[in-house]
Amino acid sequence: MSNKKPLNVAVVGYGFMGRTHSNAFKQVSQFFSLEHKPILKAVCGRNETNAKAFADQWGYESYETDWRKLIERKDIDLIDIATPNDTHAEIAIAAAKAGKMVMCEKPLGRTPTEALKMVEAVETAKVANMVWYNYRRVPAVTMAKQLIDEGKLGRIFHYRAKFLQDWTISKDLPQGGAGLWRLDASVAGSGVTGDLLAHCIDTAMWLNGDITSVTAMTETFIKERQHNLTGKVETVSIDDASAFLARFDNGSLATFEATRYARGHKALYTLEINGEHASIFWDLHDLHRLQYFDHRDEGRLRGWRSIHITDGDQPYMKHWWVPGLQIGYEHTFIHQAADFIEGLETGKPASPTFRAGLATDYVTDAVLASAQSRSWQDVKKA
Amino acid sequence: MSNKKPLNVAVVGYGFMGRTHSNAFKQVSQFFSLEHKPILKAVCGRNETNAKAFADQWGYESYETDWRKLIERKDIDLIDIATPNDTHAEIAIAAAKAGKMVMCEKPLGRTPTEALKMVEAVETAKVANMVWYNYRRVPAVTMAKQLIDEGKLGRIFHYRAKFLQDWTISKDLPQGGAGLWRLDASVAGSGVTGDLLAHCIDTAMWLNGDITSVTAMTETFIKERQHNLTGKVETVSIDDASAFLARFDNGSLATFEATRYARGHKALYTLEINGEHASIFWDLHDLHRLQYFDHRDEGRLRGWRSIHITDGDQPYMKHWWVPGLQIGYEHTFIHQAADFIEGLETGKPASPTFRAGLATDYVTDAVLASAQSRSWQDVKKA
Amino acid sequence: MSNKKPLNVAVVGYGFMGRTHSNAFKQVSQFFSLEHKPILKAVCGRNETNAKAFADQWGYESYETDWRKLIERKDIDLIDIATPNDTHAEIAIAAAKAGKMVMCEKPLGRTPTEALKMVEAVETAKVANMVWYNYRRVPAVTMAKQLIDEGKLGRIFHYRAKFLQDWTISKDLPQGGAGLWRLDASVAGSGVTGDLLAHCIDTAMWLNGDITSVTAMTETFIKERQHNLTGKVETVSIDDASAFLARFDNGSLATFEATRYARGHKALYTLEINGEHASIFWDLHDLHRLQYFDHRDEGRLRGWRSIHITDGDQPYMKHWWVPGLQIGYEHTFIHQAADFIEGLETGKPASPTFRAGLATDYVTDAVLASAQSRSWQDVKKA
Amino acid sequence: MSNKKPLNVAVVGYGFMGRTHSNAFKQVSQFFSLEHKPILKAVCGRNETNAKAFADQWGYESYETDWRKLIERKDIDLIDIATPNDTHAEIAIAAAKAGKMVMCEKPLGRTPTEALKMVEAVETAKVANMVWYNYRRVPAVTMAKQLIDEGKLGRIFHYRAKFLQDWTISKDLPQGGAGLWRLDASVAGSGVTGDLLAHCIDTAMWLNGDITSVTAMTETFIKERQHNLTGKVETVSIDDASAFLARFDNGSLATFEATRYARGHKALYTLEINGEHASIFWDLHDLHRLQYFDHRDEGRLRGWRSIHITDGDQPYMKHWWVPGLQIGYEHTFIHQAADFIEGLETGKPASPTFRAGLATDYVTDAVLASAQSRSWQDVKKA
Repeated sequence: MSNKKPLNVAVVGYGFMGRTHSNAFKQVSQFFSLEHKPILKAVCGRNETNAKAFADQWGYESYETDWRKLIERKDIDLIDIATPNDTHAEIAIAAAKAGKMVMCEKPLGRTPTEALKMVEAVETAKVANMVWYNYRRVPAVTMAKQLIDEGKLGRIFHYRAKFLQDWTISKDLPQGGAGLWRLDASVAGSGVTGDLLAHCIDTAMWLNGDITSVTAMTETFIKERQHNLTGKVETVSIDDASAFLARFDNGSLATFEATRYARGHKALYTLEINGEHASIFWDLHDLHRLQYFDHRDEGRLRGWRSIHITDGDQPYMKHWWVPGLQIGYEHTFIHQAADFIEGLETGKPASPTFRAGLATDYVTDAVLASAQSRSWQDVKKA
Repeated sequence: MSNKKPLNVAVVGYGFMGRTHSNAFKQVSQFFSLEHKPILKAVCGRNETNAKAFADQWGYESYETDWRKLIERKDIDLIDIATPNDTHAEIAIAAAKAGKMVMCEKPLGRTPTEALKMVEAVETAKVANMVWYNYRRVPAVTMAKQLIDEGKLGRIFHYRAKFLQDWTISKDLPQGGAGLWRLDASVAGSGVTGDLLAHCIDTAMWLNGDITSVTAMTETFIKERQHNLTGKVETVSIDDASAFLARFDNGSLATFEATRYARGHKALYTLEINGEHASIFWDLHDLHRLQYFDHRDEGRLRGWRSIHITDGDQPYMKHWWVPGLQIGYEHTFIHQAADFIEGLETGKPASPTFRAGLATDYVTDAVLASAQSRSWQDVKKA
Repeated sequence: MSNKKPLNVAVVGYGFMGRTHSNAFKQVSQFFSLEHKPILKAVCGRNETNAKAFADQWGYESYETDWRKLIERKDIDLIDIATPNDTHAEIAIAAAKAGKMVMCEKPLGRTPTEALKMVEAVETAKVANMVWYNYRRVPAVTMAKQLIDEGKLGRIFHYRAKFLQDWTISKDLPQGGAGLWRLDASVAGSGVTGDLLAHCIDTAMWLNGDITSVTAMTETFIKERQHNLTGKVETVSIDDASAFLARFDNGSLATFEATRYARGHKALYTLEINGEHASIFWDLHDLHRLQYFDHRDEGRLRGWRSIHITDGDQPYMKHWWVPGLQIGYEHTFIHQAADFIEGLETGKPASPTFRAGLATDYVTDAVLASAQSRSWQDVKKA
Repeated sequence: MSNKKPLNVAVVGYGFMGRTHSNAFKQVSQFFSLEHKPILKAVCGRNETNAKAFADQWGYESYETDWRKLIERKDIDLIDIATPNDTHAEIAIAAAKAGKMVMCEKPLGRTPTEALKMVEAVETAKVANMVWYNYRRVPAVTMAKQLIDEGKLGRIFHYRAKFLQDWTISKDLPQGGAGLWRLDASVAGSGVTGDLLAHCIDTAMWLNGDITSVTAMTETFIKERQHNLTGKVETVSIDDASAFLARFDNGSLATFEATRYARGHKALYTLEINGEHASIFWDLHDLHRLQYFDHRDEGRLRGWRSIHITDGDQPYMKHWWVPGLQIGYEHTFIHQAADFIEGLETGKPASPTFRAGLATDYVTDAVLASAQSRSWQDVKKA
């Protein structure tokens, strides 16, 4: 019945991120007026029973158990990668070579070396590409970007971000395999640095420009865990916690921290920016609010404003309900899918591209190197 | 590709509620494991262009411009009413007589008289029926219900609810017609009493039992507004604000208030319950949190707990993402659709049925009568 | 060493309020530049040991065990009444007749009849007089008054106040006697109506003008308690909870509520005012903050401002520390003492006078009468 | 009238800290039952007019314009130093040599070298000594200490502290002289490191043990300011902002930050501790609250508890008012004075002694050295 142009999508992976991406592609057409409508052509996963069940539940037209099949298929325009980090590079490079658009979960690669090859592949093939740093599309965060770009904050003095979780405190939690590959550095690349800090860094550089140097420390609190794939107790290879001080190109100072050992915090990503005229604070646990302080307000009436980001004049919100009614986490992916499609239509590619994803990999790499060497590290430019 | 049983749905109305209901029917199958899958057979609206566009955007198989056509169609199991209040009774009664399941936006009728006829129609026809008092399905509110039913609060002393908005403060806002029928009592039945207080009352009686008597006051702050349908300045017929004191059957006392003149509040529905052992507070502007105080905690460590309702052991949340990641407003409708379908499958109809909706209409009726007579009013039992 | 004029003070009562008043008189000279310095001439209490110990601890020059002695003493300018409510009238009237200034704890009288006699006594004697409704002197509340008087809020639509405590929930708590006279209506006059609602009403009428009519309900949840003075289980004579709806002279609507059965709240006095342009919220549990919403802020950046009232341009705060450093509860009494003395010096008596205290007694009287008669009651003007 | 033993006190300095200390000595006897009562014998300041006025306002028996006079006086037991940092060492050492007790504002010395001499002086003279790190005596912070010492938190993983202000952002603010000596490193020793971070470090080591190593960065955002004493534009010698990563002896990781360029924060000192079982958060802007999360709570009901520290079973609070009524900033000094006196009476000196103050100086020294050398620095033990 629709007269929209089809955008034929295949998603590789059906885990947590497979679900958020599938939902984004499915929901975007109802809430955004775009020329293209994503068609769920295929989902791919190694376990056939699961892949079939996922396809059935989400309304995919087909499923595959080998992602190479997707790349051979002529009926697919876009390969979306929602698999563990150790597969990103191979799939993305193959997809780009086949002339397909590529979207990839973050972090782009396990290392800048991997990520750079991915960037070169999509840029050589001139295919649309994007990394799913979804927190840029939280309406409150997008509005922070608007305010900064408009100069509302003035000169920036400080940036402060942290991402706190508490799900790995138990010594009995094993590592590796389905659901727990994030605890295995050979698959994930690193621990919280590539998983959580990568989010903080991507947002930070989007909002505040390049990070130029860092000094860091990391820690692995629990040194050994049973490995799900070998059945043996093995050395834990990831960083459980990671913190660093940084300097930005614009002269501002920053502190960053991530951990999975902060009791009481499930997924508390917070960021704060202090400018000459105004400051901004946001946290993921109340993602529909932005805290804003403006020194230009009348003196006795100055205070942090708790802005409920649910109005039509705030980013993305005219697409949803009515003022006062909040949206949630998955909407950030829907917004990103909408922006990606709009980028195709306007010819102005939406960010973050693979190259922007590489920039974050350069920072996480410098963080890990600094923690290792106990010295300040300069950050490469992407 | 799905082997689920179809539940053929027609939605009447394509406004704000037409969207939330459509989304609920569309999303429920991806997130809940049910035997039935809702099929969007038809949407109905008087304006053909709009109806067609809505059907196109949401993937409805067809559209109609007269709801009577829906009732005649054999391929439709369920009529879902998302139209202004003055049409609820006629559509619901006709649908029930035709043997169709009926879901209806709140309030059930403009008056208890209308609502009672609707109840009788669905009970005579023995068709599944439900009123969309969606706030029962906010996970935090559902958990409040669990805690109360488990006796965690002990004897209840106080109930406190309010629903504050600020969108009608401008004198230049007209009344009547599309988008503004809530300001026209002939269509809406009443003002904030039937619109906002009805929500508060439904939740309250679900959580705390029957309201037995009330004393109320109402006010219309802006007495005349241009009417969109006549083009003339006409007397405003609705209550702009409404407040009442109440006594519950269980001996507890309550205060209720709703207004569209509370500057700074977009849709602030709050409720608080004070029991002998514990208290609960919730508000719609942060719907993913529940505030809980337990006097049985160690003395010096007692405090209101801000519970982030995003964990798998909290109501409905295992169907969504991972701990720490919040859901939003529209999910309450998805939950309600899931519960309705589960009710069909288990033979235990999910609440609130039309009869429960009638109970709320009896309270709003007593509130309006009390405000008129300036006297306490007893509330009829549904 | 001081060249200030002495203001010779005698305080009657050495309980909770005796301490707050003594502290106020003792501290005011260090923080406010006034011509007069309060001299703690005498404290009075029936128990000689306690009176002597209190005098010793607080640096009173003398003590008495009969308040009549104070009134006879020539060396005393001001009688300050900090005793249970049943003694207010007798002491105040005698003090006024003796030509002494009188300050009195709230409520002024147990009944409007008592209070009226007190008003007549001080007005006939033309002595300075004041009631200790201390919450007017919370800097945040004083600033609310400024904002309203400046017209920042515009037309007022709603006023909302409550005072919630939880200290009488246990059935084992006795009534009557030292520390528990507030549970004995013969001493206190009433329960939460005269104790807690009186505070809410005084602030409300100061901020928003006269209350003209009310409809109320009260409840005594625990009907019998052991009485400390008789040793017998006796009927509880006070209201444990009290709530009322009200209309103000300016056309705004209000809800008021007080209780000692709200688990989780120790002394949560909250007030909110919704005006056409702006709204204000304050609560006693964070008394150094004012919440303020201004609709005239830029649309997307509107939000409730959490104003930390610790700056020199905010009421009273230039007398204290530096920005960011909060004051507490007892400071409200110090401010009130300062204003009283300033009133003596400028000839512009500081509020609330006894007559203003009478106005509150008229409202609490109407509330109790309405709860009794289950009907709306008009409020007398003081 | 008092039968308490006199503790004859002289305060050097009548600025902001002169006021808080004077108030502490004046108030402590009314609220704490101690054998000794501080007597305000003398205040000392270089400007005679101001010293006399201060003595008059605060009720000092005498004043001096040269602190050496105080040390010669036989009628003085305790010298309390509330002057700029460059005078601490000379006064303290002279006082100790004269056998007087010494209390000193923080930081102890401008450098560890100065501080060590002060420690040696008081330890050689065996005189009671204390540094005014007042935040240990915030009841919420004291309770945090109790909880940690009881093992409620279990193994500690993370410590996080910051102290944010915004009062030096304007380029037009001069440096040096009365009120602005904190911007002159020759007087203050350093900028925010010695002023604000010193507070954070003292609390941290009290709560969490020794800091063993740090990596730091500092920045001076505004490089030149007019100097009040010379009248010339001069290079700013202090650090405007300072941040560091740290490792504690117990294996936990920490981030610390202080700045006077964080728009929107007047004096926001926050600290958070994450343990295996529980976490704690506190901030100075709401100093009467402690946030506490306990993982041992029932799963679905876990949440951060906002504990209102106003009850008699919480540290220091039995000395004040009734539950629900908060205290403020100056009370921390009163508590510290009480503890100091109690230490005299029990023979168990209250902390922090000069030696504990030296420990903090070693950390701030390592922070400054690390920022200078861009390398990790080990911290000396006091």
